[in-house]
Amino acid sequence: MTDRVLIFDTTLRDGEQSPGATMTHAEKLEIAAMLDDMGVDIIEAGFPIASEGDFAAVAAIAKASRNATICGLSRANFKDIDRCWEAVKHAKKPRIHTFIGTSALHRAIPNLTMDQMAERIHDCVTHARNLCDDVQWSSMDATRTEWDFLKRTVEIAIKAGATTINIPDTVGYTAPVESADLIRRLIAEVEGAETVIFATHCHNDLGMATANSLAAVEGGARQIECTINGLGERAGNTALEEVVMALKVRADIMPYHSNVDSRKIMAISRRVATVSGFPVQFNKAIVGKNAFAHESGIHQDGMLKNAETFEIMRPTDVGLTETSLVMGKHSGRAALRSKLAELGFELADNQLADVFVRFKELADRKKEVFEEDLVALMRQNEAVEDRIRLKSLRVVCGTSGPQTADIVLDIDGTERTAHTTGDGPVDSAFNAVKALFDHKARLQLYQVHAVTEGTDAQATVTVRLEEDGRIATGQSADTDTVVASTKAYINALNRLIVRREKTAPDHDTKGVSYKDVGA
Amino acid sequence: MTDRVLIFDTTLRDGEQSPGATMTHAEKLEIAAMLDDMGVDIIEAGFPIASEGDFAAVAAIAKASRNATICGLSRANFKDIDRCWEAVKHAKKPRIHTFIGTSALHRAIPNLTMDQMAERIHDCVTHARNLCDDVQWSSMDATRTEWDFLKRTVEIAIKAGATTINIPDTVGYTAPVESADLIRRLIAEVEGAETVIFATHCHNDLGMATANSLAAVEGGARQIECTINGLGERAGNTALEEVVMALKVRADIMPYHSNVDSRKIMAISRRVATVSGFPVQFNKAIVGKNAFAHESGIHQDGMLKNAETFEIMRPTDVGLTETSLVMGKHSGRAALRSKLAELGFELADNQLADVFVRFKELADRKKEVFEEDLVALMRQNEAVEDRIRLKSLRVVCGTSGPQTADIVLDIDGTERTAHTTGDGPVDSAFNAVKALFDHKARLQLYQVHAVTEGTDAQATVTVRLEEDGRIATGQSADTDTVVASTKAYINALNRLIVRREKTAPDHDTKGVSYKDVGA
Repeated sequence: MTDRVLIFDTTLRDGEQSPGATMTHAEKLEIAAMLDDMGVDIIEAGFPIASEGDFAAVAAIAKASRNATICGLSRANFKDIDRCWEAVKHAKKPRIHTFIGTSALHRAIPNLTMDQMAERIHDCVTHARNLCDDVQWSSMDATRTEWDFLKRTVEIAIKAGATTINIPDTVGYTAPVESADLIRRLIAEVEGAETVIFATHCHNDLGMATANSLAAVEGGARQIECTINGLGERAGNTALEEVVMALKVRADIMPYHSNVDSRKIMAISRRVATVSGFPVQFNKAIVGKNAFAHESGIHQDGMLKNAETFEIMRPTDVGLTETSLVMGKHSGRAALRSKLAELGFELADNQLADVFVRFKELADRKKEVFEEDLVALMRQNEAVEDRIRLKSLRVVCGTSGPQTADIVLDIDGTERTAHTTGDGPVDSAFNAVKALFDHKARLQLYQVHAVTEGTDAQATVTVRLEEDGRIATGQSADTDTVVASTKAYINALNRLIVRREKTAPDHDTKGVSYKDVGA
Repeated sequence: MTDRVLIFDTTLRDGEQSPGATMTHAEKLEIAAMLDDMGVDIIEAGFPIASEGDFAAVAAIAKASRNATICGLSRANFKDIDRCWEAVKHAKKPRIHTFIGTSALHRAIPNLTMDQMAERIHDCVTHARNLCDDVQWSSMDATRTEWDFLKRTVEIAIKAGATTINIPDTVGYTAPVESADLIRRLIAEVEGAETVIFATHCHNDLGMATANSLAAVEGGARQIECTINGLGERAGNTALEEVVMALKVRADIMPYHSNVDSRKIMAISRRVATVSGFPVQFNKAIVGKNAFAHESGIHQDGMLKNAETFEIMRPTDVGLTETSLVMGKHSGRAALRSKLAELGFELADNQLADVFVRFKELADRKKEVFEEDLVALMRQNEAVEDRIRLKSLRVVCGTSGPQTADIVLDIDGTERTAHTTGDGPVDSAFNAVKALFDHKARLQLYQVHAVTEGTDAQATVTVRLEEDGRIATGQSADTDTVVASTKAYINALNRLIVRREKTAPDHDTKGVSYKDVGA
């Protein structure tokens, strides 16, 4: 058996499915490119039948793929599988992933007998295999499925042509010894086991997803399904960064390796946290801001002669560089271009001119401009075709309310003004936007964090709006928190309008979920 | 061997030690009372020699203890141990915990040979045991210590009278099979092993702390050391909520039990997140806001006939209740008192009068008042003896800066006013405070989150200030974000002043850390 463990990332499918983590089309493409670039073997790009948006994202990611296999999810029926194939077929290496819940609790949903389910699995995997050479079968809730039936479903899938067999711990129920034993027993007893790769897909409900995944590898699994930051429903999925680093740090007792370049972990972790609106807690393993002692800002104890005394990884192993003061108000255009190139942003001259103006504005307001400030500045630049733009805002707030906002918005090219009041500066500014552009969206999430330290730090604000089941997340950064909040709100609203126009509600609300197992 | 697993909580020691998580004296007492109340067996209350503050907290917690054993940490020297005993001796059940780093990397710090270290261990444990019947010995960095030497240190500690032997995975390096094997081998080969309880103390650097702790129990350990929310340095410690719930949910394969009342988990998790300023990520196992599907606000799929299909725990098992609309502007005093009593706040008449006024103010500004809003309101009430109080604030901000603030503060009973500008409303308000009360504190953390949903939500702001190594965290909630920010800043500053006055810098900065092993 090979010692290579395939990394299957499902940030864009299982991760994106978590309530509130919805990403835009452009964000999905960007994350997929980063995953491909860092050496992820298989990218599960979405659930094509779930919505037009999901289909378009999977198809676009397939077309743009370079080295990674692009996988789409489909329930166990021909319509799902056909739709999945239509999306992934554009990839250099396409994969169809089809599944059904095999435990007693899950069999009850479509109300199938064991025999009926067995027949369904045979037909669906055969159908998928007729479309695509690379077919993954998952017996959902495998860890709670009766052994005999689990064995039977896996054998049928292998006979029907599945090339990868996934054994999901759908509810985060298993423990390491059990996880290893299950895979070991399947490999020992299932007919045809030697012709396929076994995969492990763990959830973190009891906090053991990483250990369970690695135990499955010790049992013989050679594909780990995971997400960046452990994003996913409930307590999330196995965190990619944890399994990749554990394999690296403990190669002595776990002689397996992945193809992932761990130095790209921090960049994608930050990006996924930003676009999903799911912040990473300070004490998160590998990617939390406290995960490495040197990041805490507290100086190292003088007696520590050796960093290894308290660190088993070097910060650079995960792509963490020291926060560095990079620029100030006297920095020139060439310096900005070179620094941005270093951060991965290549700009044309006209783009640079625009960014330089905004950089100067920022440098005037903020004494020190850090790398993170530049990244925030660049991210703001990625505006969609906005119908609503903020021209000016003046807010008066304080202890003796009501708070008032005077706003000028450019809506479809026409300037409009409003004066409103509200409970607090943010509420009054949001009310001003509502007064000028009528909408019923509900604020689901409002979150502020300082990009860098100090009272003159830029504040990054995330706003998530929900309207008729459509969700859009907006972001903005500014040294003025109220301005950042208003821009983030407008950003979310612009995205919501795009969704509203593009799709009928029932297409976009993901009326179809992977929890529906009917045909 | 018993199937009872002792839960040893070190939120107040290893958790509080994480950079930025410093808690006040009152907060430590409150958390200790909650731990005692929920059935934690041993509470590690602090590191008495580290500072006057630590000593006072451990002593006060010891005096207030009811059922739990109260433990203090001490390095392996007589002075530390004596100081520890002075603090814990007030407890009904006191424990002295002493340790030294036994791995090669750690032996190099105090530059001791193996023989010298062995002698030190013997002397220190003997000394501790002469003071206290309950002595815990830790061979720090045990998982990276040579087997022969680890065995030797443990045997010496047992002979010298240690009653609990802790085997820490100080750097979060181990994996489940290795963790179980190490304990199993110690129990099999160490002379006197049957007379002591073995403890496991794991860190989460590779994301496996929970699995490693439970594996150690399978290997024979009967004490798990953990913290609420997995708080702790770097990636933190084993999370109490995860081990407690895993033992409960998987009693079929892990036939051990703890004495912790899991229904008290959510309340203490939220409280620790608040006082430490370490937020819990949405997808954190057990205590994240997404950990239970029903919390997401997304309605359950109609096809789900049975919650167990996707949930292995009931939300009520961890004390999670549905967010409920409780009060509005027409609610009366009796209703408020009764609701607050339900939330655990018993008020005297004069206190109620004060809270009622602030409740009415809030209800006027916010259409719906939720339980969380009331809790936030009550928390604000717990002001220390403040030297600085906010009388009024008016801030003008927006796109055409500079932002301005007009502030009136009551400082030591005298009203003073200032008009200042700044980069953003928060910066200008903070500058106004600085103009009236000179200080050099640096902003380390600025964090805003909405207590409830909706644009008129109260914003809770956390501000952490640092001055000469002293750290203070302040919090406040208000529908006006800028007001909440300013109050939080003033709250942090008041706490900093108390610290400044109480202690000389070298006492308060914890110049002594558990990483210093000399003496």
